[in-house]
Amino acid sequence: MDLEALKADAARQAAAHVKSGMVVGLGTGSTAKHLVAELGRRLKEEGLKIVGVPTSERTAEQARSLGIKLATLEEEPKLDLAIDGADEIELGTLDLIKGAGGALLRERLVESAAKTFIVIADETKKVEKLGTRFKVPVEVVRFGWKSTFARLEALGVKPRRRETDGKPFVTDEQHYTFDCATGQIPDARKLAAELKAVTGVVDHGLFIGMASECLVATSTGVEVLKKK
Amino acid sequence: MDLEALKADAARQAAAHVKSGMVVGLGTGSTAKHLVAELGRRLKEEGLKIVGVPTSERTAEQARSLGIKLATLEEEPKLDLAIDGADEIELGTLDLIKGAGGALLRERLVESAAKTFIVIADETKKVEKLGTRFKVPVEVVRFGWKSTFARLEALGVKPRRRETDGKPFVTDEQHYTFDCATGQIPDARKLAAELKAVTGVVDHGLFIGMASECLVATSTGVEVLKKK
Repeated sequence: MDLEALKADAARQAAAHVKSGMVVGLGTGSTAKHLVAELGRRLKEEGLKIVGVPTSERTAEQARSLGIKLATLEEEPKLDLAIDGADEIELGTLDLIKGAGGALLRERLVESAAKTFIVIADETKKVEKLGTRFKVPVEVVRFGWKSTFARLEALGVKPRRRETDGKPFVTDEQHYTFDCATGQIPDARKLAAELKAVTGVVDHGLFIGMASECLVATSTGVEVLKKK
Repeated sequence: MDLEALKADAARQAAAHVKSGMVVGLGTGSTAKHLVAELGRRLKEEGLKIVGVPTSERTAEQARSLGIKLATLEEEPKLDLAIDGADEIELGTLDLIKGAGGALLRERLVESAAKTFIVIADETKKVEKLGTRFKVPVEVVRFGWKSTFARLEALGVKPRRRETDGKPFVTDEQHYTFDCATGQIPDARKLAAELKAVTGVVDHGLFIGMASECLVATSTGVEVLKKK
């Protein structure tokens, strides 16, 4: 099965929730890219008129190139809807791991401001427990990062600083990202609070209680996951 | 009574704890400035040899100009001692409000890494309860700052964005600072945890359980405060 085709299916179905006049948070990553492309198509072919609030410089560029009108979260502090991908979706709770794409902080800020937050994914993202396949990214202040690293090690989450091309990866907000090999997480809400409480930590990729619904594309169609 | 003279008294007494060979965290602000000046004097007159880890660009500049050898927290992750001022010192607990000087995040990172953390102040900084005279500074991510502002308002801490010369003040780590008019704080440890948990908050000025001792200069001499 072609994963890209599945991602595009989920993105198209989510884009159908978008109506003219809406302020829409635009996610970041490989699935969100399909969403932005589909919104661009509807703008061109159907005259869809929305204001997008992008969660990264990358997404802003793509949206701009398609003629989608953009605003910052300061200009549009209340969003009708946000749509974004996720690295893992826990069945039942719809709790998420996000941040493999490097934009978790802006994603959380934008998605927290939305009335409805729809997650789009292919079926490989479903897990029984968060931490099954993906690491939990943690965004940290660059100053004194080694001491923050040691504090996370002491929490037992096995951090590793993310690098691209042999250089430390720096987020849009000028922080580092540590990918933490937690293994399956028994209590994600508890770990989320513990991570945020650590000195030097700005944010993390555990999105607890934020998703309104998840659209998960499978080979037989798009499945709608709701909270149990 | 001359406050500057009192600050210098406390700084001199704290500097006497510094011995050659030590790695010393250097605070930021009007009292810490006296400390760095005194360490510079001892370097010149007594041949004191230390490595300083500065908590701000400002302090780094001053120390450099006096010939004090500097290192980053990455180069020296374990400090023998850190010395810094505070805006308020709570009697009994030695809990602090810090950050009026604009460097709270780097201060916390450096001072958390020190075996001993000595606070220096003039006697006007002593309070029965934190929040009596000073606001609690909160360092926040610039992206989406208005939504973070709203979350802090909802906590009841009356935030106000700090400005200098009519422009938003930006910290060394490229964040904004909100000064929060909490009034007297009944449970500072609880508020500290609540503030850090807020999405968009990087750090705050409540330093709980961090001070080893406080040297408080009064008109009749320097008083040593220890935890009760």
